[in-house]
Amino acid sequence: MEKPILILVAGGTASGKTTVVNEITSYFNSSDISVLLMDNYYKKRDDFSLEERKLINYDHPDSFDLELLKNDLKSLQKGNIIYSPSYDFKIHNRSDSKIAIRPSKVIILEGILSMYDNDIRNLANIKIFVESESDIRFIRRLKRDTTERGRSLDDVINQYLKTVKPMHDLYVEPCKRFADIIIPNNDNHDVALGILAAKIKDIIWQ
Amino acid sequence: MEKPILILVAGGTASGKTTVVNEITSYFNSSDISVLLMDNYYKKRDDFSLEERKLINYDHPDSFDLELLKNDLKSLQKGNIIYSPSYDFKIHNRSDSKIAIRPSKVIILEGILSMYDNDIRNLANIKIFVESESDIRFIRRLKRDTTERGRSLDDVINQYLKTVKPMHDLYVEPCKRFADIIIPNNDNHDVALGILAAKIKDIIWQ
Repeated sequence: MEKPILILVAGGTASGKTTVVNEITSYFNSSDISVLLMDNYYKKRDDFSLEERKLINYDHPDSFDLELLKNDLKSLQKGNIIYSPSYDFKIHNRSDSKIAIRPSKVIILEGILSMYDNDIRNLANIKIFVESESDIRFIRRLKRDTTERGRSLDDVINQYLKTVKPMHDLYVEPCKRFADIIIPNNDNHDVALGILAAKIKDIIWQ
Repeated sequence: MEKPILILVAGGTASGKTTVVNEITSYFNSSDISVLLMDNYYKKRDDFSLEERKLINYDHPDSFDLELLKNDLKSLQKGNIIYSPSYDFKIHNRSDSKIAIRPSKVIILEGILSMYDNDIRNLANIKIFVESESDIRFIRRLKRDTTERGRSLDDVINQYLKTVKPMHDLYVEPCKRFADIIIPNNDNHDVALGILAAKIKDIIWQ
C-alpha cells in the first residue's frame, strides 16, 4: 500500500470541523478513510481529582498528549492498526476504553490544535482550516454545551471568556497561516466539500 | 455541451490571483479553460482627458463596466465566442483591440472585484479568494509597479494609501465572505492548486 495521506482539519471551537469531516467521509467507504479525533488525546490525569481536572485549561496545547498522538499517526502511516485513547468529557479524563483505528489510504486528524505542532504539520499532506466568525462559533457552542452537556449559561460564558477565547486567539487562530486551504463556514460549504472530495477521490482511486 | 463552469478568482492587489490562475491553467489544455481578466472591463473613458483618467479611482466597483462583463459571461456560458475588450494601462483607457475568447468547459474570471457583483456571484459555480497579508501585497505591488510600470516609489505609496488600500478594505476584503474556499498565499500554495486541479479535472473529463 502507498503511504497514506494525512489530512489535518483545524479551526476554532464550533467552527464546523466535525461537520466538514463527517460530510467528507460520507462520500467514501468507511474502509477508505480513518478519522482521529484530537480530543481523544487529552492527557491522562489520574493524579488529579475531578475538581482539579475541571480547572484544567483544555484549550492550551499542553493539555494534549502530543507524543502519543505523533506516535499513533506515524504508526498509521506505516500501515499499522492503532488503538486510540478515548476521552470521557463527563469525568474530564481518559476513559478505560480504546478505539481501534485501521490504516487506510486517507487519515484525517480533526481538532482545534491539529495544526499546532510542527512535527504533525510535517507529517501532513493537506492542511485545512475551517473558519467561522467568532459570534457564530460562540452561539453554536452555547447551544451545544447547554443542550448536550448540561452546562449553565453562566458556565459557558465564563469558560469561553476565561480560556476558550484567549487560547483561540493565542494558539488556534495563528495556525490558520499554515493552512493549505481555508473553508469559510458561516453558512453553506457544499462547494468546498465537492472540491475536497474530488481530491480525495483521486487519492483513493489512483 | 454541458453548461460551462464559471470560477471566480478574487483577492486584493498583488495577492497572487494571476499566479494561481496561470498555474491552474497550466495543468490543462488551453482549449479546456477560458480566462477573462476583469481589468479588461474597466469602463471606456473617451470623454475624459489622459490627465483626468489618471485621477479615476480604479479600485472602486463603479470603474468597471459590469453590464458588459455580465453579458459576456452569460454569452460564454451559452457556448458563444465573445470578444472581450482590452485595457491599455499606459493610456488608462480601453484599447481598440479585442480579445477573442472561445467557450470551453471551464471559464475563469479573475479580478480584485470579481466576487463583488451579486449577479456575477450567482452565475458562478466556484468562488475562490486568494489571500495574502497586506504588507506582502504592498511589497509585491511596489516591486511590480516600479519595475514593470515605471512608477516612482512616491507614486506607488500615494496611490496605495489614497485609493488602493481604502477600496480594498471597503470592497475587496468583504467579498471574502462569499468565497467557497480561501487560498492563503503568503508563500507556497501547491497543495491548494492540486486540490483545485482535481476538481477541474473532474469537470473537464466527466
